Amino acid sequence: MVITPISSAANSRLKLARSLQRRRTRRKQQLILLEGERLITDSISAGFPPALFFFTPEAERQHARLLALAAEAGAQLLRVEPELFAGISDTVSPQGVLAVTPLPHLPPAVAGLALILDGVRDPGNLGTVLRSAAAANADQVILMPGVTDPWSPKALRSGMGAHFRIAIREAKSIEQVRAWLPGYAIYFADASGELSYTDVDWSHPSALILGGETERAGIVSQWPDVTAVAIPMARGVESLNAAVAGSVILFEAVRQRL
Amino acid sequence: MVITPISSAANSRLKLARSLQRRRTRRKQQLILLEGERLITDSISAGFPPALFFFTPEAERQHARLLALAAEAGAQLLRVEPELFAGISDTVSPQGVLAVTPLPHLPPAVAGLALILDGVRDPGNLGTVLRSAAAANADQVILMPGVTDPWSPKALRSGMGAHFRIAIREAKSIEQVRAWLPGYAIYFADASGELSYTDVDWSHPSALILGGETERAGIVSQWPDVTAVAIPMARGVESLNAAVAGSVILFEAVRQRL
Repeated sequence: MVITPISSAANSRLKLARSLQRRRTRRKQQLILLEGERLITDSISAGFPPALFFFTPEAERQHARLLALAAEAGAQLLRVEPELFAGISDTVSPQGVLAVTPLPHLPPAVAGLALILDGVRDPGNLGTVLRSAAAANADQVILMPGVTDPWSPKALRSGMGAHFRIAIREAKSIEQVRAWLPGYAIYFADASGELSYTDVDWSHPSALILGGETERAGIVSQWPDVTAVAIPMARGVESLNAAVAGSVILFEAVRQRL
Repeated sequence: MVITPISSAANSRLKLARSLQRRRTRRKQQLILLEGERLITDSISAGFPPALFFFTPEAERQHARLLALAAEAGAQLLRVEPELFAGISDTVSPQGVLAVTPLPHLPPAVAGLALILDGVRDPGNLGTVLRSAAAANADQVILMPGVTDPWSPKALRSGMGAHFRIAIREAKSIEQVRAWLPGYAIYFADASGELSYTDVDWSHPSALILGGETERAGIVSQWPDVTAVAIPMARGVESLNAAVAGSVILFEAVRQRL
């Protein structure tokens, strides 16, 4: 294994990693940061090996297997001192392993079940619902303009590897979404909707729009011809966490399709 | 409205509020801290008015309605300067309203659907799943030893008022749980379980044990005679977020009982 030691904060690869903390740079460079053993291992096993792999001397001992895995997958191995590692890490107590990996572009599947996020601003919620969509075998997750970046460290962390298992597409407009989902019935989750999610026939090609939490349904775009579906709830309870509501509906679709 | 201005950090009521940031003091005093307009409003409308209500001069103008509501509910109104308010606030950008409220003890309902948390350490997950349990009309949520404090500011925040709508009980042992749930079938959520959660007959009195995320199922106690139930998932996906998994199963129980 060829290991390159980095001892200066001005090193170009270290600078590249730091620059990827910004959304805009991630888009431009088509690269993302993956921190921690679990996320890096998941990405490699899903077929997305890192280009660069940074580690501290301590992590070199503790994560020897991951080091070998990354080397075998073709990553450049870069040893950095803890002080420099802190500058590229997003966590308070870093594990000392961080990968720069090409941003994945998975093709949508044809399961006939899609999730559309519109107005979701919390990266933790976004990652959690991506994880549910991947687990529910949805064909894709479409993000409307204004949704928080799915490739941010926090969204990646709560996604727990889902980002490498389901197509994530960013739509510019409602028209584009319609073109991507020909023949799909489109529903949106709204606690005040009159139709119960259990009364929808999810065996047809269907898409579910999920909003954020602040507004009523939290949906931002003006969707024509979509049907509100609600999860009936106990009196006095206003709503569920957005990621929970989306997941409950997705798994009802899965149940109906069994 | 009688308003008492507080100008010293040594004020006894301010000191009481600060001391309630600790779990042990919350138990001893049987008081909790509620921060933000939404949580305080929810607690009052659920019948749990604050004993003390702290606010900054700016919040006095912005949250005049909440002030009147708290006064009408019998709270002592205490005006504090922003510097002193920061010492009792748990948030980075405080709204400037904070209540000290008796810790609620709601009696369990008799819905025949209970949730047991065992090994849940993330307060955000705990609050989220409490919210789902309240929405699903479960009769109670039982916490096993070692579960994160449901009355911490972060758990209260993600609970969004659920803490005032469902019985939360802390169990000392498995035997105590069995005594609390006579005749209930007990299941536990485990991604590697062989029985699908959709094949369980949830119309009988049932309880679901939900673990944390770190271990396999994340369950800590040694439960005898319980049945593992799984949510069937796509290949490659290891697990769902714990709060999501619990919510999906709870709402399947609700669906079967419709």
